[in-house]
Amino acid sequence: MTKINENYLKLPGSYLFSEVNRRAAAYAQANPDKKLIKLGIGDVTLPLPAAVTAAMHAAVDEMATAQGFHGYGPEQGYDFLREAIAQHDYRARGVDIDPSEIFVSDGAKSDCGNIGDIFGLDNVVAVCDPVYPVYVDTNAMAGRAGEYSEASGMWSKLHYMPCTAENGFSPAIPDKKVDLIYLCFPNNPTGAVATRAQLEAWVEYANRNGSVILYDSAYEAFITQEDIPHSIFEIEGAKTCAIEFRSFSKTAGFTGTRCAYTVVPKALERGGASLNFLWNRRQCTKFNGVPYVVQRGAEAVYSPEGAAQVKENLAYYQNNAKVIFQGLQSAGLTVSGGINSPYIWCQTPDGMGSWEFYDLLLSRANVVTTPGAGFGPSGEGYIRLTAFGGAEATAEAVARIKAVL
Amino acid sequence: MTKINENYLKLPGSYLFSEVNRRAAAYAQANPDKKLIKLGIGDVTLPLPAAVTAAMHAAVDEMATAQGFHGYGPEQGYDFLREAIAQHDYRARGVDIDPSEIFVSDGAKSDCGNIGDIFGLDNVVAVCDPVYPVYVDTNAMAGRAGEYSEASGMWSKLHYMPCTAENGFSPAIPDKKVDLIYLCFPNNPTGAVATRAQLEAWVEYANRNGSVILYDSAYEAFITQEDIPHSIFEIEGAKTCAIEFRSFSKTAGFTGTRCAYTVVPKALERGGASLNFLWNRRQCTKFNGVPYVVQRGAEAVYSPEGAAQVKENLAYYQNNAKVIFQGLQSAGLTVSGGINSPYIWCQTPDGMGSWEFYDLLLSRANVVTTPGAGFGPSGEGYIRLTAFGGAEATAEAVARIKAVL
Repeated sequence: MTKINENYLKLPGSYLFSEVNRRAAAYAQANPDKKLIKLGIGDVTLPLPAAVTAAMHAAVDEMATAQGFHGYGPEQGYDFLREAIAQHDYRARGVDIDPSEIFVSDGAKSDCGNIGDIFGLDNVVAVCDPVYPVYVDTNAMAGRAGEYSEASGMWSKLHYMPCTAENGFSPAIPDKKVDLIYLCFPNNPTGAVATRAQLEAWVEYANRNGSVILYDSAYEAFITQEDIPHSIFEIEGAKTCAIEFRSFSKTAGFTGTRCAYTVVPKALERGGASLNFLWNRRQCTKFNGVPYVVQRGAEAVYSPEGAAQVKENLAYYQNNAKVIFQGLQSAGLTVSGGINSPYIWCQTPDGMGSWEFYDLLLSRANVVTTPGAGFGPSGEGYIRLTAFGGAEATAEAVARIKAVL
Repeated sequence: MTKINENYLKLPGSYLFSEVNRRAAAYAQANPDKKLIKLGIGDVTLPLPAAVTAAMHAAVDEMATAQGFHGYGPEQGYDFLREAIAQHDYRARGVDIDPSEIFVSDGAKSDCGNIGDIFGLDNVVAVCDPVYPVYVDTNAMAGRAGEYSEASGMWSKLHYMPCTAENGFSPAIPDKKVDLIYLCFPNNPTGAVATRAQLEAWVEYANRNGSVILYDSAYEAFITQEDIPHSIFEIEGAKTCAIEFRSFSKTAGFTGTRCAYTVVPKALERGGASLNFLWNRRQCTKFNGVPYVVQRGAEAVYSPEGAAQVKENLAYYQNNAKVIFQGLQSAGLTVSGGINSPYIWCQTPDGMGSWEFYDLLLSRANVVTTPGAGFGPSGEGYIRLTAFGGAEATAEAVARIKAVL
């Protein structure tokens, strides 16, 4: 009899965003006259930049001709895109990353989920709390998380690093040895960023202990403060201890177009093996590259027109973030994030539970948010709002929330 | 210290097609005056059908507007595509598959590689020999294959099912219990197909033993003989023992456009768990769907114009297959496949080794093939040729091979 992967059965309930959507859909169905505003899931709403769609049209035209047709591309991505990334996302910030260290993929979610393939099952995994559920769930599926406790909302083998108001939503360096460390800055869900000094401490810890930092910087484009690092590789020594995940999803509106990349430095070795070599082997065996048309679209993000259009879209979302941040603050709520991030992290009033506040905002303000508790135990007492809605709808949502409170 | 997945270090040498390409590139560099014809890797050469590119253009236009923009889509694929697949690929052949049993993905390679996620590590895996290397390598990476022997070219824990001239390239039903059975018909690399009676025997075996058949029918569109099943689900009882992988790659020229799908019936359960539920959980946690633009392109494959254009392209490749098959046969070589498949499986002359014949055809005929030995020990003494080249180049390649022999 075929055995299933029993670890899957240990996963609690459904994926957070499915439950958020389920409740919202149920409410909408029961109240067809109410107009819901969704500030829950981090999905963009602005159309693709004109430079991107122009490049995609041109690529589709190529695919329609014998001369311009592209079949299987390199599993790692086309050189034109890997070189554009190395140039604009790294060299332009003084970081030397070789194109061969860049692996283009269909999404940061895929890469964050699949990266575990190249690591042993007996590594100790450290995650922030609250945290993007994919880090936790994929390790649980692989068997690295141990057993789940409904009572604590925690897995027995994971090392949790609470990010709370007390520590400014900045995780403390573990006081024991951990092997794989998931860090995400600007953070999802809290919107917090890491300073250069904080990242230096992480790199020092990882190099000293032989740990690997899995650094998710999918939201780096939202950083507005000059002195905040955009990449872990801006920190000296990071190339011997870190892998970085980046995405075109939030930067250029690619959530439905699917393109991202992962940087695995050649200097990164563990147990005598090159992690760049291992990840390359993984990708060549289980992946066949990103559509040519999409890679041409991603390349256009780096053209002068594309870059200007992306900047405009980012400014639009950044303004939404400001509207939410200031609006909720003026309503007497305690808020953080939002300045270098599309996420606003908002404390519930009067010690209300996350899901309770979610339900209240859903039913009274008709605004969909994400309950902080869905991101981990330390997220209890918070909700997450996103700046990816329309400007008008966002202002309307804030006004409604203020009216309810 | 972070531990790597040690199983990766057990993998022998480089991926077959990398080595094929490496030798061809080295030869081309050393002989810049020679014009190589590539009949090695199974990559299509005809442009995308006009109906597909028209649909992709329209979808790109949608993505450029606020009203038509699509962000995150369903991880399982859009309903419009799942329904088109259920209708045209299954219901039209009398097979009732529900859209909720269909998972759209970026490639059959990804799905064949990732499907192992939902199964335990202690399953006994059966593979054909020769075989598409992805089945073997991904199980080796997961730790299900045991140890590799350079001497035999085999993994200690895999159950090999030789497909040889003696058994008509049809694997024998195992005389012991195996759990996961990879079957691929029309077969890569031999081009052999399975009759209804043969598939019935497999389904009977799997249901009796609680095994799961992982059925790769990526090449079903090449079947020309009326009585050959296109899907394992044409066999009664298959829904309780099989998962099927399909692709738009070879059918509609999507090798560089990336769209495929996997069918996991709701009736398929093991250890009390629904495999449809497990695969859905895997995809929702580690995957974020296929680009909207690509899914619209795939949908167009089922339009009357799209279907007619696809049929025309298939006929073009089928004619190439015939040219290769008949040409090699008339040169005195023993060939099989090619009739219901884009692959021609050719015995080397005079007991020559696979790589030796590959090198001979490369250097003397300037034709790139794939050595059968790269697909497993029973592939020794064969080469694989593909029908995906241009018609002129294919005829030229056959003429050159004949001249050499």
